[in-house]
Amino acid sequence: MSPLSLNTVTVKERWGLAQSIEGCARHGIPGISPWRDVLHAMGVAPAAKHIRDAGLSVTGLCRGGMFPAGDAAGRAAAIEDNRRAIDEAHALNAQCLVMVCGGLPAGSRDLAGARAMVRDGLAAILPYARAAGVTVALEPLHPMTCADRSVLSTTAQALDLCDALGDGLGVALDCYHIWWDPDVERQIARAGTRIAAFHACDWLVPTTDLVFDRGMPGDGVIDIAHLRACVEAAGYKGFTEVELLSRRWWAEDPDQVLTIMKDRHKV
Amino acid sequence: MSPLSLNTVTVKERWGLAQSIEGCARHGIPGISPWRDVLHAMGVAPAAKHIRDAGLSVTGLCRGGMFPAGDAAGRAAAIEDNRRAIDEAHALNAQCLVMVCGGLPAGSRDLAGARAMVRDGLAAILPYARAAGVTVALEPLHPMTCADRSVLSTTAQALDLCDALGDGLGVALDCYHIWWDPDVERQIARAGTRIAAFHACDWLVPTTDLVFDRGMPGDGVIDIAHLRACVEAAGYKGFTEVELLSRRWWAEDPDQVLTIMKDRHKV
Repeated sequence: MSPLSLNTVTVKERWGLAQSIEGCARHGIPGISPWRDVLHAMGVAPAAKHIRDAGLSVTGLCRGGMFPAGDAAGRAAAIEDNRRAIDEAHALNAQCLVMVCGGLPAGSRDLAGARAMVRDGLAAILPYARAAGVTVALEPLHPMTCADRSVLSTTAQALDLCDALGDGLGVALDCYHIWWDPDVERQIARAGTRIAAFHACDWLVPTTDLVFDRGMPGDGVIDIAHLRACVEAAGYKGFTEVELLSRRWWAEDPDQVLTIMKDRHKV
Repeated sequence: MSPLSLNTVTVKERWGLAQSIEGCARHGIPGISPWRDVLHAMGVAPAAKHIRDAGLSVTGLCRGGMFPAGDAAGRAAAIEDNRRAIDEAHALNAQCLVMVCGGLPAGSRDLAGARAMVRDGLAAILPYARAAGVTVALEPLHPMTCADRSVLSTTAQALDLCDALGDGLGVALDCYHIWWDPDVERQIARAGTRIAAFHACDWLVPTTDLVFDRGMPGDGVIDIAHLRACVEAAGYKGFTEVELLSRRWWAEDPDQVLTIMKDRHKV
């Protein structure tokens, strides 16, 4: 069974980063993946120390990206913010910096243009990431987020970017985002050692919200074990990170959430 | 400008098929695409006569498909129902029978198995469709519908099925379902003369429901003109059909909806 990691957004309504670190240690969950808001609230250096003292691996920092913007100043600000995220990922010794690449600029219908902004933004931050030794992990997001969160929608598209931009890039594969893709098995094999993270999350039927109704593994229709077997066949032996954006789970006692997470963790 | 067609689901809360036919004639909309529920309510032969008398083209019949089922009896019933849909499409002289292929059987996580059921179902009905001279148009549906409506998610996947199963198949391309696809331009070119229908519908930001919050063309972020140009470059010169599943538009006066549809129709 793969080592488990808690993405902090899973318990964000009730626990800050210190409680999440302590919760992982208490539950014997060996990995953690903080979002930057809780990281900033605690402070980067204290968080790095606390996580190290707890003996946890940082399976990712969430998140960089959000490159498209309607003007040059906005795009430059995004690049600068990504450099700060790289600093933070380095300070945490994170296995990767997860990229949610961004959607269309407000009012725009220019999808090709937004994709070019993503490519250009990644190209701009890559030298800095390479110098810091931080892997930039492109996360294809479900196509239903294309307009407002990520014009990077498929594993193939992420790997095409990796091919085009060279070293320092990898992919973060979340079952929730990729399970529907008829090409996913072939693309996971293509990804090979570029798989920097594997996220487990389930698709509920019905799904009542496009962002905040993700399912606990086991509650939905995704064959997570199959996707885990695919990434392992491709060479990935790392953590399975659970990242739930879910109003239902946010309302629960986090200790109960972590207990259920562990019970469901079968891959 | 392409000829316009009204998909009857756009006005389903207020108009039956007779009213929709009369509405199209009154508004100078030359095409109509009925759903089978309103068709059955009117009766197939009377509907065919009424549509013909009104001088309308039938740009499609919605819908066949829904092949996956948990047992053989369910799958056989789906195939039989699709044969009746082919009869109806023939009676209406419809340009195609639109296929919403179906999601996972209840309780199943076997996506590959569901896709095999779709392929097998299509293979079972194709001889009947060919004999009737009815084009079976595979409609890739947005990946957010994969679990419960269509395991056929991309244009590439639809064309792979066309290639595998031979004559009598085409594709129905709805902007709403395909706009996000990084491969869509290339796949539309590949589709060529197999494009049997083109549907215009917009993606709203935010989208508040996975099924019933589609946007009137012009209200969202899809570059519909670009996609229309792509299908025309591939050889499609036919109708632009507007199919809105939208609680917001269902609440409006249908005459107002048709007026706005015409105003927005720029491709």
